[in-house]
Amino acid sequence: MKQTELQKLVEETVVNVIQSEVTSKDRMSIPIGVSNRHVHLSEAVVERLFGTGYKLTKHKELSQPGQFACKETVTVIGPRGNLRNVRILGPAREMTQLEISLSDGFVLGVKPPVRLSGDIEGTPSFILQGPRGQLKVEKGLICAARHIHMHPTDAEKFGVQHGEKVDIFVPGERSVTFHDTLIRVSESFQLEMHIDFDEANAAQIQNGQKAWLKR
Amino acid sequence: MKQTELQKLVEETVVNVIQSEVTSKDRMSIPIGVSNRHVHLSEAVVERLFGTGYKLTKHKELSQPGQFACKETVTVIGPRGNLRNVRILGPAREMTQLEISLSDGFVLGVKPPVRLSGDIEGTPSFILQGPRGQLKVEKGLICAARHIHMHPTDAEKFGVQHGEKVDIFVPGERSVTFHDTLIRVSESFQLEMHIDFDEANAAQIQNGQKAWLKR
Repeated sequence: MKQTELQKLVEETVVNVIQSEVTSKDRMSIPIGVSNRHVHLSEAVVERLFGTGYKLTKHKELSQPGQFACKETVTVIGPRGNLRNVRILGPAREMTQLEISLSDGFVLGVKPPVRLSGDIEGTPSFILQGPRGQLKVEKGLICAARHIHMHPTDAEKFGVQHGEKVDIFVPGERSVTFHDTLIRVSESFQLEMHIDFDEANAAQIQNGQKAWLKR
Repeated sequence: MKQTELQKLVEETVVNVIQSEVTSKDRMSIPIGVSNRHVHLSEAVVERLFGTGYKLTKHKELSQPGQFACKETVTVIGPRGNLRNVRILGPAREMTQLEISLSDGFVLGVKPPVRLSGDIEGTPSFILQGPRGQLKVEKGLICAARHIHMHPTDAEKFGVQHGEKVDIFVPGERSVTFHDTLIRVSESFQLEMHIDFDEANAAQIQNGQKAWLKR
Protein backbone atom coordinates (compact mmCIF):
# COMPACT_ATOMS: atom_id res chain seq x y z
CA MET A 1 0.00 0.00 0.00
CA LYS A 2 1.33 3.41 -0.93
CA GLN A 3 1.83 6.08 1.71
CA THR A 4 -0.78 8.38 0.10
CA GLU A 5 -3.38 5.61 0.17
CA LEU A 6 -2.61 4.82 3.79
CA GLN A 7 -2.77 8.50 4.72
CA LYS A 8 -6.17 8.75 3.04
CA LEU A 9 -7.48 5.66 4.84
CA VAL A 10 -6.35 6.97 8.22
CA GLU A 11 -7.90 10.39 7.55
CA GLU A 12 -11.20 8.81 6.55
CA THR A 13 -11.19 6.64 9.68
CA VAL A 14 -10.54 9.66 11.90
CA VAL A 15 -13.33 11.63 10.19
CA ASN A 16 -15.75 8.70 10.64
CA VAL A 17 -14.91 8.40 14.33
CA ILE A 18 -15.42 12.14 14.87
CA GLN A 19 -18.71 12.11 12.93
CA SER A 20 -20.10 9.22 14.92
CA GLU A 21 -19.16 10.99 18.18
CA VAL A 22 -20.94 14.13 17.04
CA THR A 23 -24.01 12.12 15.98
CA SER A 24 -24.20 10.28 19.28
CA LYS A 25 -24.18 13.57 21.18
CA ASP A 26 -26.71 15.14 18.84
CA ARG A 27 -29.74 13.62 20.52
CA MET A 28 -32.64 15.96 20.84
CA SER A 29 -35.24 15.72 23.55
CA ILE A 30 -38.96 14.99 23.32
CA PRO A 31 -41.45 15.54 26.17
CA ILE A 32 -43.29 12.39 27.25
CA GLY A 33 -47.07 12.29 27.75
CA VAL A 34 -48.30 9.33 29.79
CA SER A 35 -51.76 8.15 28.69
CA ASN A 36 -54.01 6.58 31.27
CA ARG A 37 -56.81 4.28 30.15
CA HIS A 38 -59.45 6.21 28.19
CA VAL A 39 -62.19 5.86 25.64
CA HIS A 40 -63.19 7.74 22.48
CA LEU A 41 -66.93 7.61 21.74
CA SER A 42 -69.04 8.18 18.65
CA GLU A 43 -72.02 10.53 19.05
CA ALA A 44 -74.42 7.59 18.79
CA VAL A 45 -72.64 5.81 21.66
CA VAL A 46 -72.66 8.99 23.78
CA GLU A 47 -76.46 9.16 23.41
CA ARG A 48 -76.85 5.46 24.20
CA LEU A 49 -74.84 5.76 27.44
CA PHE A 50 -75.85 9.26 28.58
CA GLY A 51 -79.27 9.83 27.00
CA THR A 52 -80.73 11.29 23.79
CA GLY A 53 -79.20 14.60 22.72
CA TYR A 54 -76.51 14.47 25.42
CA LYS A 55 -73.36 16.54 24.71
CA LEU A 56 -70.01 15.78 26.40
CA THR A 57 -68.62 18.54 28.63
CA LYS A 58 -65.00 19.67 28.48
CA HIS A 59 -63.01 19.04 31.67
CA LYS A 60 -59.58 20.19 30.44
CA GLU A 61 -57.60 20.71 27.25
CA LEU A 62 -55.02 18.08 26.28
CA SER A 63 -51.61 18.80 24.80
CA GLN A 64 -52.68 17.89 21.25
CA PRO A 65 -54.63 20.82 19.77
CA GLY A 66 -58.44 20.39 19.84
CA GLN A 67 -58.35 17.30 22.07
CA PHE A 68 -59.84 17.43 25.56
CA ALA A 69 -60.66 15.27 28.57
CA CYS A 70 -64.37 15.21 29.38
CA LYS A 71 -66.01 15.51 32.78
CA GLU A 72 -67.84 12.28 32.00
CA THR A 73 -66.48 8.80 32.68
CA VAL A 74 -67.78 5.29 31.98
CA THR A 75 -67.37 1.84 33.49
CA VAL A 76 -65.85 -0.91 31.33
CA ILE A 77 -67.28 -4.33 32.16
CA GLY A 78 -65.01 -7.33 31.56
CA PRO A 79 -65.35 -11.09 31.96
CA ARG A 80 -63.10 -11.06 35.06
CA GLY A 81 -63.49 -7.54 36.47
CA ASN A 82 -64.49 -3.94 35.76
CA LEU A 83 -62.61 -0.69 35.24
CA ARG A 84 -64.48 2.23 36.82
CA ASN A 85 -64.15 5.95 36.09
CA VAL A 86 -62.59 5.48 32.66
CA ARG A 87 -62.15 8.97 31.22
CA ILE A 88 -63.86 9.92 27.94
CA LEU A 89 -61.69 11.96 25.57
CA GLY A 90 -63.37 14.43 23.22
CA PRO A 91 -64.39 15.51 20.72
CA ALA A 92 -66.70 12.66 19.62
CA ARG A 93 -65.14 10.53 16.85
CA GLU A 94 -66.51 8.41 14.02
CA MET A 95 -65.35 5.23 15.73
CA THR A 96 -65.58 4.19 19.36
CA GLN A 97 -62.24 2.98 20.71
CA LEU A 98 -61.12 1.88 24.18
CA GLU A 99 -57.41 2.27 25.00
CA ILE A 100 -56.14 0.33 28.02
CA SER A 101 -52.81 -1.03 29.25
CA LEU A 102 -51.92 -4.73 29.34
CA SER A 103 -52.21 -4.44 33.17
CA ASP A 104 -55.77 -3.16 32.75
CA GLY A 105 -56.36 -6.15 30.47
CA PHE A 106 -55.55 -8.51 33.38
CA VAL A 107 -58.13 -6.70 35.54
CA LEU A 108 -60.81 -6.98 32.83
CA GLY A 109 -59.82 -10.49 31.79
CA VAL A 110 -59.12 -9.59 28.16
CA LYS A 111 -55.92 -9.41 26.11
CA PRO A 112 -55.77 -6.12 24.20
CA PRO A 113 -53.73 -6.23 20.98
CA VAL A 114 -51.01 -3.56 20.68
CA ARG A 115 -52.31 -1.31 17.87
CA LEU A 116 -52.03 2.21 16.62
CA SER A 117 -55.00 4.40 17.43
CA GLY A 118 -57.59 3.98 14.65
CA ASP A 119 -56.31 0.56 13.54
CA ILE A 120 -59.11 -1.47 15.13
CA GLU A 121 -60.07 -4.10 12.53
CA GLY A 122 -60.27 -7.49 14.24
CA THR A 123 -59.80 -6.13 17.77
CA PRO A 124 -61.90 -7.42 20.69
CA SER A 125 -65.37 -6.21 21.66
CA PHE A 126 -66.06 -4.55 25.02
CA ILE A 127 -68.98 -3.51 27.22
CA LEU A 128 -69.47 0.09 28.38
CA GLN A 129 -71.78 1.18 31.19
CA GLY A 130 -73.02 4.78 31.42
CA PRO A 131 -75.63 6.43 33.67
CA ARG A 132 -78.42 5.80 31.14
CA GLY A 133 -77.47 2.47 29.63
CA GLN A 134 -75.09 -0.34 28.81
CA LEU A 135 -73.71 -1.14 25.36
CA LYS A 136 -71.59 -3.83 23.75
CA VAL A 137 -69.16 -2.27 21.26
CA GLU A 138 -68.23 -4.85 18.61
CA LYS A 139 -64.57 -3.85 18.16
CA GLY A 140 -62.04 -1.23 19.25
CA LEU A 141 -60.39 -2.55 22.42
CA ILE A 142 -56.65 -1.88 22.02
CA CYS A 143 -53.44 -1.25 23.89
CA ALA A 144 -52.13 1.87 22.14
CA ALA A 145 -48.75 1.36 20.47
CA ARG A 146 -46.26 4.01 21.62
CA HIS A 147 -45.67 6.79 19.13
CA ILE A 148 -44.35 10.32 18.75
CA HIS A 149 -46.50 13.21 17.56
CA MET A 150 -44.52 15.71 15.52
CA HIS A 151 -45.33 18.88 13.66
CA PRO A 152 -43.59 18.91 10.22
CA THR A 153 -41.08 21.45 11.60
CA ASP A 154 -40.14 18.97 14.37
CA ALA A 155 -39.77 16.15 11.85
CA GLU A 156 -37.40 18.32 9.86
CA LYS A 157 -35.42 19.26 12.99
CA PHE A 158 -35.11 15.59 14.04
CA GLY A 159 -34.46 14.44 10.47
CA VAL A 160 -37.24 11.84 10.53
CA GLN A 161 -40.32 11.09 8.44
CA HIS A 162 -43.93 10.09 9.04
CA GLY A 163 -44.09 6.32 9.49
CA GLU A 164 -40.43 5.92 10.46
CA LYS A 165 -39.59 3.85 13.55
CA VAL A 166 -36.94 5.15 15.94
CA ASP A 167 -35.15 4.24 19.17
CA ILE A 168 -35.97 6.42 22.16
CA PHE A 169 -33.70 6.57 25.21
CA VAL A 170 -35.15 7.49 28.59
CA PRO A 171 -32.57 8.19 31.33
CA GLY A 172 -33.14 7.56 35.04
CA GLU A 173 -32.99 4.92 37.73
CA ARG A 174 -34.93 2.47 35.51
CA SER A 175 -33.37 3.66 32.27
CA VAL A 176 -34.67 2.01 29.09
CA THR A 177 -34.54 2.36 25.32
CA PHE A 178 -37.89 1.96 23.59
CA HIS A 179 -37.20 0.48 20.15
CA ASP A 180 -39.53 0.65 17.13
CA THR A 181 -41.29 3.82 18.26
CA LEU A 182 -43.43 5.18 15.44
CA ILE A 183 -43.14 8.77 14.19
CA ARG A 184 -46.47 10.41 13.26
CA VAL A 185 -46.27 13.77 11.52
CA SER A 186 -49.18 16.19 11.10
CA GLU A 187 -49.75 19.95 10.91
CA SER A 188 -52.15 19.49 13.83
CA PHE A 189 -49.63 17.76 16.12
CA GLN A 190 -47.49 19.15 18.91
CA LEU A 191 -44.18 17.43 19.75
CA GLU A 192 -44.87 14.68 22.30
CA MET A 193 -44.14 10.99 22.84
CA HIS A 194 -47.17 9.00 23.97
CA ILE A 195 -46.71 5.94 26.17
CA ASP A 196 -49.07 4.06 28.48
CA PHE A 197 -48.92 3.51 32.25
CA ASP A 198 -47.09 0.16 31.99
CA GLU A 199 -44.34 1.76 29.93
CA ALA A 200 -44.21 4.78 32.26
CA ASN A 201 -43.96 2.62 35.38
CA ALA A 202 -41.41 0.24 33.86
CA ALA A 203 -39.08 3.19 33.25
CA GLN A 204 -40.29 5.23 36.27
CA ILE A 205 -41.36 8.07 33.98
CA GLN A 206 -43.25 11.16 35.15
CA ASN A 207 -45.57 13.03 32.81
CA GLY A 208 -43.60 15.74 30.96
CA GLN A 209 -40.22 14.03 31.49
CA LYS A 210 -37.78 14.13 28.55
CA ALA A 211 -36.92 11.29 26.17
CA TRP A 212 -34.06 11.31 23.66
CA LEU A 213 -34.10 10.27 20.03
CA LYS A 214 -31.13 8.00 19.29
CA ARG A 215 -29.54 8.37 15.87
CA MET B 1 4.07 10.13 9.82
CA LYS B 2 6.21 7.20 8.70
CA GLN B 3 4.76 4.43 6.57
CA THR B 4 5.31 1.81 9.31
CA GLU B 5 3.40 3.93 11.84
CA LEU B 6 0.55 4.46 9.37
CA GLN B 7 0.44 0.76 8.55
CA LYS B 8 0.22 -0.06 12.27
CA LEU B 9 -2.58 2.47 12.81
CA VAL B 10 -4.61 1.08 9.92
CA GLU B 11 -4.12 -2.50 11.10
CA GLU B 12 -5.23 -1.59 14.62
CA THR B 13 -8.30 0.17 13.24
CA VAL B 14 -9.25 -2.85 11.13
CA VAL B 15 -8.77 -5.22 14.09
CA ASN B 16 -10.95 -2.97 16.29
CA VAL B 17 -13.73 -2.88 13.70
CA ILE B 18 -13.68 -6.67 13.31
CA GLN B 19 -13.66 -7.21 17.08
CA SER B 20 -16.63 -4.92 17.65
CA GLU B 21 -18.57 -6.73 14.89
CA VAL B 22 -17.86 -10.08 16.50
CA THR B 23 -18.81 -8.77 19.94
CA SER B 24 -22.11 -7.28 18.77
CA LYS B 25 -23.16 -10.64 17.31
CA ASP B 26 -22.05 -12.55 20.40
CA ARG B 27 -25.19 -11.93 22.43
CA MET B 28 -26.25 -14.83 24.58
CA SER B 29 -29.77 -15.40 25.81
CA ILE B 30 -31.16 -15.33 29.35
CA PRO B 31 -34.61 -16.64 30.35
CA ILE B 32 -36.87 -14.01 31.94
CA GLY B 33 -38.81 -14.64 35.15
CA VAL B 34 -41.66 -12.21 35.77
CA SER B 35 -42.22 -11.54 39.49
CA ASN B 36 -45.71 -10.71 40.64
CA ARG B 37 -46.21 -8.82 43.91
CA HIS B 38 -45.12 -10.95 46.88
CA VAL B 39 -43.95 -10.79 50.46
CA HIS B 40 -41.16 -12.45 52.44
CA LEU B 41 -41.99 -12.90 56.13
CA SER B 42 -39.91 -13.48 59.26
CA GLU B 43 -41.03 -16.35 61.52
CA ALA B 44 -42.24 -13.85 64.13
CA VAL B 45 -44.44 -12.12 61.54
CA VAL B 46 -45.82 -15.49 60.31
CA GLU B 47 -46.92 -16.27 63.89
CA ARG B 48 -48.44 -12.83 64.33
CA LEU B 49 -50.52 -13.12 61.14
CA PHE B 50 -51.35 -16.85 61.20
CA GLY B 51 -51.17 -17.85 64.87
CA THR B 52 -48.56 -19.15 67.35
CA GLY B 53 -46.43 -22.01 66.04
CA TYR B 54 -47.82 -21.71 62.48
CA LYS B 55 -45.61 -23.07 59.70
CA LEU B 56 -45.94 -21.97 56.07
CA THR B 57 -46.93 -24.66 53.56
CA LYS B 58 -45.19 -25.11 50.22
CA HIS B 59 -47.40 -24.51 47.17
CA LYS B 60 -44.74 -24.88 44.46
CA GLU B 61 -41.00 -24.69 43.91
CA LEU B 62 -39.59 -21.55 42.29
CA SER B 63 -36.78 -21.50 39.74
CA GLN B 64 -34.17 -20.37 42.28
CA PRO B 65 -33.06 -23.42 44.31
CA GLY B 66 -34.69 -23.70 47.78
CA GLN B 67 -37.22 -20.90 47.12
CA PHE B 68 -40.93 -21.69 47.01
CA ALA B 69 -44.35 -20.05 46.76
CA CYS B 70 -46.54 -20.75 49.80
CA LYS B 71 -50.20 -21.72 49.84
CA GLU B 72 -50.79 -18.79 52.20
CA THR B 73 -51.47 -15.24 51.07
CA VAL B 74 -51.95 -11.95 52.95
CA THR B 75 -53.76 -8.67 52.34
CA VAL B 76 -51.72 -5.48 52.18
CA ILE B 77 -53.63 -2.47 53.53
CA GLY B 78 -52.72 0.92 52.08
CA PRO B 79 -53.89 4.49 52.64
CA ARG B 80 -55.81 4.49 49.32
CA GLY B 81 -56.61 0.84 48.69
CA ASN B 82 -55.72 -2.77 49.47
CA LEU B 83 -53.95 -5.57 47.62
CA ARG B 84 -55.59 -8.93 48.32
CA ASN B 85 -54.15 -12.43 47.88
CA VAL B 86 -50.52 -11.30 47.94
CA ARG B 87 -48.43 -14.47 47.75
CA ILE B 88 -45.97 -15.32 50.54
CA LEU B 89 -42.63 -16.67 49.32
CA GLY B 90 -40.73 -19.11 51.53
CA PRO B 91 -38.67 -20.06 53.36
CA ALA B 92 -39.09 -17.54 56.23
CA ARG B 93 -36.36 -14.88 56.19
CA GLU B 94 -34.70 -12.74 58.85
CA MET B 95 -36.36 -9.61 57.47
CA THR B 96 -39.91 -9.05 56.29
CA GLN B 97 -40.04 -7.44 52.84
CA LEU B 98 -42.92 -6.54 50.53
CA GLU B 99 -42.15 -6.38 46.79
CA ILE B 100 -44.73 -4.60 44.62
CA SER B 101 -44.78 -2.82 41.26
CA LEU B 102 -45.17 0.95 40.85
CA SER B 103 -48.69 0.17 39.50
CA ASP B 104 -49.47 -1.66 42.75
CA GLY B 105 -48.16 1.42 44.57
CA PHE B 106 -50.90 3.53 42.91
CA VAL B 107 -53.53 1.07 44.14
CA LEU B 108 -52.19 1.16 47.72
CA GLY B 109 -51.49 4.89 47.66
CA VAL B 110 -47.76 4.57 48.41
CA LYS B 111 -44.63 5.18 46.34
CA PRO B 112 -42.26 2.22 46.61
CA PRO B 113 -38.58 3.06 46.12
CA VAL B 114 -36.78 0.96 43.48
CA ARG B 115 -34.36 -1.15 45.55
CA LEU B 116 -32.48 -4.39 45.42
CA SER B 117 -33.98 -7.17 47.51
CA GLY B 118 -32.57 -6.88 51.05
CA ASP B 119 -31.66 -3.20 50.74
CA ILE B 120 -34.55 -1.90 52.85
CA GLU B 121 -33.04 0.81 55.10
CA GLY B 122 -35.25 3.89 54.98
CA THR B 123 -38.01 2.24 52.91
CA PRO B 124 -41.71 2.80 53.76
CA SER B 125 -43.73 0.89 56.36
CA PHE B 126 -46.73 -1.22 55.39
CA ILE B 127 -49.67 -3.01 57.01
CA LEU B 128 -50.28 -6.75 56.57
CA GLN B 129 -53.53 -8.54 57.37
CA GLY B 130 -53.58 -12.30 57.99
CA PRO B 131 -56.35 -14.63 59.23
CA ARG B 132 -55.27 -14.21 62.87
CA GLY B 133 -54.13 -10.59 63.02
CA GLN B 134 -52.94 -7.35 61.52
CA LEU B 135 -49.43 -5.93 61.77
CA LYS B 136 -47.61 -2.74 60.83
CA VAL B 137 -44.15 -3.57 59.49
CA GLU B 138 -41.84 -0.58 60.04
CA LYS B 139 -39.84 -0.88 56.81
CA GLY B 140 -39.38 -3.11 53.77
CA LEU B 141 -41.82 -1.88 51.11
CA ILE B 142 -39.89 -1.84 47.82
CA CYS B 143 -40.22 -2.09 44.07
CA ALA B 144 -37.57 -4.72 43.24
CA ALA B 145 -34.83 -3.44 40.95
CA ARG B 146 -34.43 -5.70 37.93
CA HIS B 147 -31.45 -8.03 38.11
CA ILE B 148 -29.98 -11.19 36.66
CA HIS B 149 -29.22 -14.26 38.75
CA MET B 150 -26.17 -16.13 37.52
CA HIS B 151 -24.25 -19.15 38.66
CA PRO B 152 -20.44 -18.48 38.51
CA THR B 153 -20.26 -20.67 35.39
CA ASP B 154 -22.84 -18.40 33.68
CA ALA B 155 -20.91 -15.27 34.72
CA GLU B 156 -17.79 -16.76 33.13
CA LYS B 157 -19.68 -17.68 29.95
CA PHE B 158 -21.16 -14.17 29.66
CA GLY B 159 -17.88 -12.50 30.68
CA VAL B 160 -19.50 -10.46 33.48
CA GLN B 161 -18.94 -10.05 37.20
CA HIS B 162 -21.09 -9.79 40.34
CA GLY B 163 -22.23 -6.18 40.73
CA GLU B 164 -21.74 -5.25 37.07
CA LYS B 165 -24.56 -3.44 35.27
CA VAL B 166 -25.45 -4.49 31.74
CA ASP B 167 -27.84 -3.65 28.89
CA ILE B 168 -30.48 -6.28 28.14
CA PHE B 169 -32.31 -6.38 24.81
CA VAL B 170 -35.77 -7.91 24.59
CA PRO B 171 -37.11 -8.47 21.06
CA GLY B 172 -40.78 -8.39 20.11
CA GLU B 173 -43.63 -6.09 19.18
CA ARG B 174 -42.83 -3.77 22.12
CA SER B 175 -39.07 -4.29 21.92
CA VAL B 176 -36.99 -2.54 24.61
CA THR B 177 -33.48 -2.43 26.00
CA PHE B 178 -33.30 -2.43 29.79
CA HIS B 179 -30.19 -0.47 30.76
CA ASP B 180 -28.34 -0.71 34.10
CA THR B 181 -29.48 -4.24 34.85
CA LEU B 182 -27.53 -5.64 37.79
CA ILE B 183 -25.65 -8.94 37.64
CA ARG B 184 -25.83 -11.03 40.82
CA VAL B 185 -23.59 -14.09 40.98
CA SER B 186 -23.92 -16.91 43.50
CA GLU B 187 -23.30 -20.67 43.67
CA SER B 188 -26.96 -21.00 44.68
CA PHE B 189 -28.34 -19.12 41.65
CA GLN B 190 -29.77 -20.41 38.40
CA LEU B 191 -29.55 -18.23 35.27
CA GLU B 192 -32.62 -15.97 35.15
CA MET B 193 -33.47 -12.29 34.70
CA HIS B 194 -36.03 -11.01 37.19
CA ILE B 195 -38.37 -8.19 36.23
CA ASP B 196 -41.70 -7.03 37.62
CA PHE B 197 -45.15 -6.90 36.00
CA ASP B 198 -44.80 -3.28 34.84
CA GLU B 199 -41.58 -4.12 33.02
CA ALA B 200 -43.11 -7.31 31.59
CA ASN B 201 -46.22 -5.51 30.31
CA ALA B 202 -44.26 -2.56 28.91
CA ALA B 203 -42.27 -4.96 26.72
CA GLN B 204 -45.10 -7.53 26.33
CA ILE B 205 -42.95 -10.23 27.92
CA GLN B 206 -44.20 -13.71 28.79
CA ASN B 207 -42.66 -15.68 31.63
CA GLY B 208 -39.75 -17.75 30.29
CA GLN B 209 -39.20 -15.55 27.22
CA LYS B 210 -35.58 -14.87 26.22
CA ALA B 211 -33.59 -11.68 26.75
CA TRP B 212 -30.19 -10.90 25.22
CA LEU B 213 -27.12 -9.46 26.89
CA LYS B 214 -25.68 -6.65 24.78
CA ARG B 215 -21.90 -6.34 24.75
